[in-house]
Amino acid sequence: MSFQDALARCAADTDALLDRLLPLDAFPARRVVEAMRYSALGQGKRLRPFLVVESAALFGVPREQALRTGAALECVHCYSLVHDDLPAMDDDDLRRGKPTAHKAFDEATAILAGDALLTYAFEILSADATHPDPAVRLRLIAGLSKAAGMAGMVGGQMLDIEAESRVTSSLSDISLIQSLKTGALFRFACEAGAMLAGQDPTPLRQYADKIGLAFQIADDILDVESTPQALGKATQKDKAMGKATFVDLLGLEDAKARATALTEEAVASLAIYGPRAAILNDAARFIVQRRS
Amino acid sequence: MSFQDALARCAADTDALLDRLLPLDAFPARRVVEAMRYSALGQGKRLRPFLVVESAALFGVPREQALRTGAALECVHCYSLVHDDLPAMDDDDLRRGKPTAHKAFDEATAILAGDALLTYAFEILSADATHPDPAVRLRLIAGLSKAAGMAGMVGGQMLDIEAESRVTSSLSDISLIQSLKTGALFRFACEAGAMLAGQDPTPLRQYADKIGLAFQIADDILDVESTPQALGKATQKDKAMGKATFVDLLGLEDAKARATALTEEAVASLAIYGPRAAILNDAARFIVQRRS
Repeated sequence: MSFQDALARCAADTDALLDRLLPLDAFPARRVVEAMRYSALGQGKRLRPFLVVESAALFGVPREQALRTGAALECVHCYSLVHDDLPAMDDDDLRRGKPTAHKAFDEATAILAGDALLTYAFEILSADATHPDPAVRLRLIAGLSKAAGMAGMVGGQMLDIEAESRVTSSLSDISLIQSLKTGALFRFACEAGAMLAGQDPTPLRQYADKIGLAFQIADDILDVESTPQALGKATQKDKAMGKATFVDLLGLEDAKARATALTEEAVASLAIYGPRAAILNDAARFIVQRRS
Repeated sequence: MSFQDALARCAADTDALLDRLLPLDAFPARRVVEAMRYSALGQGKRLRPFLVVESAALFGVPREQALRTGAALECVHCYSLVHDDLPAMDDDDLRRGKPTAHKAFDEATAILAGDALLTYAFEILSADATHPDPAVRLRLIAGLSKAAGMAGMVGGQMLDIEAESRVTSSLSDISLIQSLKTGALFRFACEAGAMLAGQDPTPLRQYADKIGLAFQIADDILDVESTPQALGKATQKDKAMGKATFVDLLGLEDAKARATALTEEAVASLAIYGPRAAILNDAARFIVQRRS
């Protein structure tokens, strides 16, 4: 199967699973479930679930286990987008070409839907269906909570906001922000496959760190070279806020060269898996070459 | 030990544990940890951790396990206060006599600190120190995530916000909101003791449902009879928003009688534990008689 087919299949499977996991009529507070579904269903490349599924496939983990783990991770990713888009945070009106959750509903509902998606991720992981071994489920919960919390994604978002008020940021500043804000969830996504299999996650962690950084550099390049129409969200917001990007600090050509080099380093990290890693290798290249 | 001494001891132990669990200098994003500590340390009666500790004590569960479980629950309770106080939600400036988190810091930091406290609760529960049996830790995580999420506390907050725009609410409407918004965490607190011991939680669930409802009725009574100075927060906000309270629907005297009757029903639920339940019985009475 080609990388593009594998990505599309994972996105469809993740969407179907999230649809089942978020039944509209099962809970008294219908409005918050509507907002959760609005924020979690039908959009996005599902790159993080894809990384879980493909890293798990390296070890022959049952696909259903990987999809559930990926769905939990996607709930965390989607909650972070809903909260980051709030007026008090990045104040974005558009996300994946649609009004953001607080525009489509209201701010209070968006805050609650984000809270509920985050909470639900841990409920999903705690269930038997995720993995028969309780110790494995606990490792997933520990890993996701660390990746998402103050020492990971939330910490990175805090540092990112603080960076706005600084005159200059260095390459090490924005690299730290990236490794926490977006890197931590990429790392969990790739390590989860090894966790589900009870295998050493080191090669996948190295791969994740490379593609996570390449993804952010590619985002900064797209922000300069693409349009709001192609991306489905506003561009040049970082510049307007005075935030430094990898393109600012490296220059456009060096940023592109760095992203390409990281791709090849990511591929090299997975050499021990041989041809089984072909789809993950293609994924690393896609991250740099994508147009949206 | 008297109930008041047991409550004070649990509050001190919970505070000391949260202080250790939230070290200020261990993470790059210091500001979000400061806001988490501001929101979680040094205030509150710690009623939910107390219920975990005392329900666990019925079965001889090691106190350290109960305190960790209680600390995780308190992180969830404190996150919910931070988010509920936000301008887009209840818009409160004062909480426990101090400026609310978004007043002391800013809205973005308050949103992130709430997110991080919620996330951290699951990290705390996933660790070995909470209970040596992974299956028990998973039951705690499943229980807390259900109690806190769309089918519990967040769902109740959503319904509560929706109730503001209604002309009238019935007793069954506000009872449902209470059972989700505040009842679900009370229920988890009391059931957690039995979960840690691997015992039947049914009597404790019944007790929790009675005291949870009594607590809300007592809150509504205090809102009428107390002052912002005594409570450390604004009073009569529900009335200003047009929200119905138990006092509105039952009248003040019947509300008081109902709260007292619920207390005695709660005490009766624990009859099978005999004199071991003395402190929990006193707690039920305190909930109705408290002045703040």
